[in-house]
Amino acid sequence: MNEKNYCVIMAGGIGSRFWPFSRNNRPKQFLDFFGIGRSLLQMTVDRFRPIIPIENILIVTNVAYKQMILEQIPDLRPEQVLCEPARRNTAPCIGYAIAHIKGDMRKKAGQNVPLTADGAVDWDNELMNANIVVAPSDHLILQEDKFRAAILKGFEFTKKNDCLMTLGMQPTRPETGYGYIQKDASEVTYNGIYKVKTFTEKPDRELAEVFVKSGEFLWNSGIFLWNLRAIRTAYIQYLPEVVEKLKPGEMLMGTDKEEAFMQENFPLCPNISIDYGVMEKAPNVYVQPASFGWSDLGTWGSLYELSDKDPQGNVTLKSEAMYYDSENNVVTLPAGHLAVLKGLNDYIVAEADGVLLICPKSDEQHIRQMVTDAEVRFKGKFN
Amino acid sequence: MNEKNYCVIMAGGIGSRFWPFSRNNRPKQFLDFFGIGRSLLQMTVDRFRPIIPIENILIVTNVAYKQMILEQIPDLRPEQVLCEPARRNTAPCIGYAIAHIKGDMRKKAGQNVPLTADGAVDWDNELMNANIVVAPSDHLILQEDKFRAAILKGFEFTKKNDCLMTLGMQPTRPETGYGYIQKDASEVTYNGIYKVKTFTEKPDRELAEVFVKSGEFLWNSGIFLWNLRAIRTAYIQYLPEVVEKLKPGEMLMGTDKEEAFMQENFPLCPNISIDYGVMEKAPNVYVQPASFGWSDLGTWGSLYELSDKDPQGNVTLKSEAMYYDSENNVVTLPAGHLAVLKGLNDYIVAEADGVLLICPKSDEQHIRQMVTDAEVRFKGKFN
Repeated sequence: MNEKNYCVIMAGGIGSRFWPFSRNNRPKQFLDFFGIGRSLLQMTVDRFRPIIPIENILIVTNVAYKQMILEQIPDLRPEQVLCEPARRNTAPCIGYAIAHIKGDMRKKAGQNVPLTADGAVDWDNELMNANIVVAPSDHLILQEDKFRAAILKGFEFTKKNDCLMTLGMQPTRPETGYGYIQKDASEVTYNGIYKVKTFTEKPDRELAEVFVKSGEFLWNSGIFLWNLRAIRTAYIQYLPEVVEKLKPGEMLMGTDKEEAFMQENFPLCPNISIDYGVMEKAPNVYVQPASFGWSDLGTWGSLYELSDKDPQGNVTLKSEAMYYDSENNVVTLPAGHLAVLKGLNDYIVAEADGVLLICPKSDEQHIRQMVTDAEVRFKGKFN
Repeated sequence: MNEKNYCVIMAGGIGSRFWPFSRNNRPKQFLDFFGIGRSLLQMTVDRFRPIIPIENILIVTNVAYKQMILEQIPDLRPEQVLCEPARRNTAPCIGYAIAHIKGDMRKKAGQNVPLTADGAVDWDNELMNANIVVAPSDHLILQEDKFRAAILKGFEFTKKNDCLMTLGMQPTRPETGYGYIQKDASEVTYNGIYKVKTFTEKPDRELAEVFVKSGEFLWNSGIFLWNLRAIRTAYIQYLPEVVEKLKPGEMLMGTDKEEAFMQENFPLCPNISIDYGVMEKAPNVYVQPASFGWSDLGTWGSLYELSDKDPQGNVTLKSEAMYYDSENNVVTLPAGHLAVLKGLNDYIVAEADGVLLICPKSDEQHIRQMVTDAEVRFKGKFN
């Protein structure tokens, strides 16, 4: 295991689309989604353990969730949980992690760091040796061996090239809920890793079908790989307003001044995504096509799609169920509970902590509004 | 309060049509159906308290529920809860209560009992003074003052006449879920109490409409009034096989031999209803039309009908609910829970103790089968 490989897990989201399953005080990534005894975050960390030293796994989150994370991952040191004092999307989130990793390397410097001819630390070389994978905390990956193989293959490339790599999922259906990445098939660079031609937002159905048929488009997984030199260079060029706020803190990372520094400076960062801020602008962006049973678990529909179904197309998670004249539903109640459905088709039936949602799968985009309505009507009791 | 008035409450049923709300170990009559802090049984007892001395209230039930009854009605003495060792329908149930009341009077004899000319207890007269109302434990009555007025008016009649009286509810709709009683309008006997012409089983819709339109038919409430002499005479004539088994026990009632006697003899009684065994055969059967907001709470549909509805026709019991594009549903979750429904019309949504039922109101006759299916599949865990 390479002690200079790092992993950054983004765990600050709320996931209100999975209400009532997800709550303000217990977002999606902290839930045992499948009733298997591990939360999505725990599964994410477990997935990296064989290839990233545990002390190099960083989790960026809201301060409100720090304690829950330390409880869920007890072998994490508190300083590995980076707390965002405000929600500023993925670019500042990753910017904070980059600064922290740079600080971490600085602390280690002088031990095994190569020196330049004049005896100074060879930072330029050293930063290139630090390879980083950035991943969301709330996705599902079924084939973890293939996932790790893709990460390691990516690191083989990033440690030799200053590039920004993303993992592109081979699409299995014309999904309209994902962004797409078009690979540049004219220029195969390394063992099936492609330069990126375009990033595309969520397409409509017709366009999604064209994308899938073309063979050139991949789902944007939100999983990134790069070496520290490449991503710092990209931030300096494309996100100077983030660098300006956070770079002065590199010296303070890992010290008791880190929190106060971030408290003051992080909220001054612009609210911007890494995709829009860097990936769509930089020239050295690559995509590694991969296929390891991935879902962003972004919607009940996606959860339904990837789950085992009974002969009537019903998905039952965590609980028991009996179906009468009922097809293509997704049902999840607290463990040990029983649902009995009659005459219900294509519905979400989800109960958690005293809230029961019954909603057609096709209407799940309304769930956000319901969450807001419940917030107003019940003063947050059910949020 | 007349100390010779008795009340017999029948509380042995299971009420599986209200599953998952009702369970084997917690039938319908023991449930706080409306989230008001009183079970249907407690409400039934409370309803009689102002007109029947508490020590004259008897509850006939299955032995499995005795403890629960004593907990729910703590001012009841254990010997007021009569335990049926087997399920034998209402005729043996009431036969047991009659025997118990006779025994109770025997114990009291010699105190205030009138004597015949030769100094013996004037049983014939005494039995006529004991007036009894028999009522189910799991019905809903909204206008309790009117209910008690009807009972007292009935007693005025039964204490002077050896008759078997039933309360007939003025029908408010062509309900097909109730039995009907036709009054004999040709012969008004006492202040609006009628002789009964016919008893009719649950009619089909068309017939029910004819019944209601005719003005001669009343719903059979299953609430009976009579004096002890009249009902004993009727049993001797129409149910000799019940009398033969139970009458020898009259001497043992209220003693420590009561239970053993019933254990041995009660199961030998035929399985027969009071309606079929007595009311439909005796010539001296009367009906008192009444109207006090009655429902047998026999079905979710009847519960829906009598409950307050929001402008969209939804009924929410015990819990909170938010409705989107949803009309005419009846929703009951555990107290403090929230249901969010979208795109659901005319459904029952009921959750209790880890079982959630979602079923069209029009399909509720299937619930019994679901209960059986759950019994088989989950070995009684949810029954």
